[in-house]
Amino acid sequence: MLTESEADDLRAACTRFLAGHGPVRAAELLAGIPADTVVDRYGDGGVVAELEATVAGLLGTEAAVFLPSGIMAQQIVLRVHADRRGRRTVLYHPMCHLEHHEGRALERLQGLVGRPVGEAHRLLTAADLDAVAEPAAALLVELPQRDLGGQQPAWADLEAQVAWARERGAAAHLDGARLWESAAGYGVPPARVAALFDSVYVSFYKGIGALAGCCVAGDGALVGEVREWRRRVGGTLFGLWPLAASALALLPGRLERMPRYLEQARAIAAALAGVPGVRVVPDPPQTPMMHLLLEADEATVDAAVRRLAADGTWTIRGASPTADPAVLRFELPVGDATCAFAPEEAAEIIAVLARRP
Amino acid sequence: MLTESEADDLRAACTRFLAGHGPVRAAELLAGIPADTVVDRYGDGGVVAELEATVAGLLGTEAAVFLPSGIMAQQIVLRVHADRRGRRTVLYHPMCHLEHHEGRALERLQGLVGRPVGEAHRLLTAADLDAVAEPAAALLVELPQRDLGGQQPAWADLEAQVAWARERGAAAHLDGARLWESAAGYGVPPARVAALFDSVYVSFYKGIGALAGCCVAGDGALVGEVREWRRRVGGTLFGLWPLAASALALLPGRLERMPRYLEQARAIAAALAGVPGVRVVPDPPQTPMMHLLLEADEATVDAAVRRLAADGTWTIRGASPTADPAVLRFELPVGDATCAFAPEEAAEIIAVLARRP
Repeated sequence: MLTESEADDLRAACTRFLAGHGPVRAAELLAGIPADTVVDRYGDGGVVAELEATVAGLLGTEAAVFLPSGIMAQQIVLRVHADRRGRRTVLYHPMCHLEHHEGRALERLQGLVGRPVGEAHRLLTAADLDAVAEPAAALLVELPQRDLGGQQPAWADLEAQVAWARERGAAAHLDGARLWESAAGYGVPPARVAALFDSVYVSFYKGIGALAGCCVAGDGALVGEVREWRRRVGGTLFGLWPLAASALALLPGRLERMPRYLEQARAIAAALAGVPGVRVVPDPPQTPMMHLLLEADEATVDAAVRRLAADGTWTIRGASPTADPAVLRFELPVGDATCAFAPEEAAEIIAVLARRP
Repeated sequence: MLTESEADDLRAACTRFLAGHGPVRAAELLAGIPADTVVDRYGDGGVVAELEATVAGLLGTEAAVFLPSGIMAQQIVLRVHADRRGRRTVLYHPMCHLEHHEGRALERLQGLVGRPVGEAHRLLTAADLDAVAEPAAALLVELPQRDLGGQQPAWADLEAQVAWARERGAAAHLDGARLWESAAGYGVPPARVAALFDSVYVSFYKGIGALAGCCVAGDGALVGEVREWRRRVGGTLFGLWPLAASALALLPGRLERMPRYLEQARAIAAALAGVPGVRVVPDPPQTPMMHLLLEADEATVDAAVRRLAADGTWTIRGASPTADPAVLRFELPVGDATCAFAPEEAAEIIAVLARRP
C-alpha cells in the first residue's frame, strides 16, 4: 500500500476525486461556517441548540443532543439503556463499530459487554436473534451495514428485529452513522427509519461532510440523561459551535442530494457489469456506497493509483485484503466528487485499478 | 443574578470588557485559523502534530498528545497511572475540578475514587498529605488553585508534596489548566514547573483564549497510552485541526504576555487598597487572576452591572454567594481585555460593583 505521505502528495496534486465529496480542505470547511455564528457556551445555546432542534425535527424525535464524537455518543446511550434496565449485554452484528474500532471501551469504561449475533459476512436477521437466551440491555442495529458495502435488511425483517428486542425488554438503538444514506436506500424520510427505534445516533462528517460531530436523538428524558453523560466523558467542550455550524450549513444540501448519490452508485455498478476482475457488493448498491472487489494484487492496484493520479484523478490509498488472497477490496462512498464523473468514466477508472498496465 | 439572555444582550452592546480577553466571537476565532492549515486525520498529522511538538518543547517533555477536553484528558491520565500501579485512589485538594465539576466520572467511568485532602479554603500542604495512610495511584496538584483565586504553594512546599507522592509510589500529576499563569506567578518557564511532575495537563481555551482543547504531556510511553485511551473515550475526532490550529496561533503571543497580565492584576489589586467594601484574594495576586469579595447584595451588584453596561463596559454576569451572606465573590481572570484599562480605572469599575447608586 502507498505510504500516507506519498498518498498525501499524490492527492494534493489531483483535481478530480472518485470517492465521496473529495478531500478535506481547511479553507473550504472554514469558509462554510458563517462569521456571524452564534456561539454556544459549553454546549448550551447558539448554533448548537439550533442544530439540535433541526435534527430532532428531521428525525421526528422529542429531542436531540450534539456530541463531538460518535464513539462517545453510542457508548453513552447504551450506558443509559443498560443502567435503566439493570442489564449489561449489548447485542450487535459481528462487524459492529463497537466490536472492532473502539478498543473494547464498552467493557473497559462502561462495564458493559458486547455480544455479536449472526455472521460477519451477511446481514443480521430476526432469526439470528432467536439464538440469544440472555436478557439484553439493548439491540444495536447499524443501517446501512458499512462493512457489508452498505447493505440493509428488508423493512419487514428490520421491524421484526426491533419487535424481538422490545418484547424482551431491550432497547432498540440505531447506529445511524449513515442514516441519511439508509433513508435514501429505503426511499423513505429519515424520520420513518428513526421512528422504529428508542434512540438514534446520526453523524455529520461522513455522508454530510462536515467537520466532526454527531447527534443522539430520542425522547426528552433519554436525551437529558445523555446530556449529563456528555459532560462526564468530556464531550461538553467549551465551544462546540464550529462543529455544529459546519454541520448545520452542509446538512440540508447533502441530505437533499442523497437520492442523486444513490442513483449514481447504481449507475456506476451497472456500468461495471461484465468488467473482468471487478465485482460490486452489493449489486445493485442499496445505499449511496458500495464495496468493490478487485481481482488484483497490491502492486497492481498501487501502480494503477499512481498512473491515475498522474492524470489528475485521485482514487484510493490502497485496497484491503480479503479472505481470498487473489482479491482486494475497497469501499466507495458516493458523493459530490463521485457525481462529477459520468458513470461510465467512473467505471473505467475502477476497471483500471484491477488491470495490469 | 441577571438571566443569561439579558446578560447576552447587555454584553453584545458593550465595547470594553473587564475580564480576560473579552467575549468569544466566532468571526475573530475563525479568522485566526490559517486557511492553509494542514488537516489531521483522526488526530494524526498536520497541525495537531505540530501543536503537540510545540507543547512538548515548551514543557520539556518527551511527548504530548492533543485532546478536545480537559475532563477527558485528566480522567485518562489518572486511569493510566492507576492501572500501572494497581491502585484506585486519587488524592487532590477539596476544590479539585474532578470533585465538583465532572459528575463523579472518575468513579462512574473509570472505577477510580477521588480522595480530597486538606481544607477547602486554603492550599493543600505537604503536611496535609501525612494524614493519608492508604497507597494512592496519584496525587493531583492544581497550579494555580483556581477556586482560591489563583493561589499556589511556595516552591519548596510544592517540591515536598511531589516528593511525598513519589516516595509512596504514587504518580505526581499536574492539573495545569492554568500552567501558563502558574509559571508567570513563579517567575519561571513552564518547563520548570512541568519538570516536577510525571504528567501534565495544559489547556488552550482559558488563558490562551483558543477554541477548545488541551494537551497531556509526559514521557513517550505515558503519552502513547493516553493516545490509546483518547480513541476509546471518543476524543479522537475525525478532525481536531480547527481546535489545534486555533491554539497554535494564539499560544506564543498570549504566553509571552502572561507576565504583563500578572503585573496588571497586581496593579489593579494595589489600586483597590482601601476601597471600602472590596477585598482582593489573594492580595497581592500570585498569578494573572484574583477573586474579588464585594460587601454587597445581588440586587446592588446587578444594578451596577446594568449601569456599567449602559456606559459600554461589560463586567460580570453575577457574583456568587459566600459563607458570609453579606459578601459576594467573583473571579477576575486578567487578559488582553483587562489590560485595555488603566489599573485605577479597572479598580474604580470594581468599586462601583459594590456601591449602591
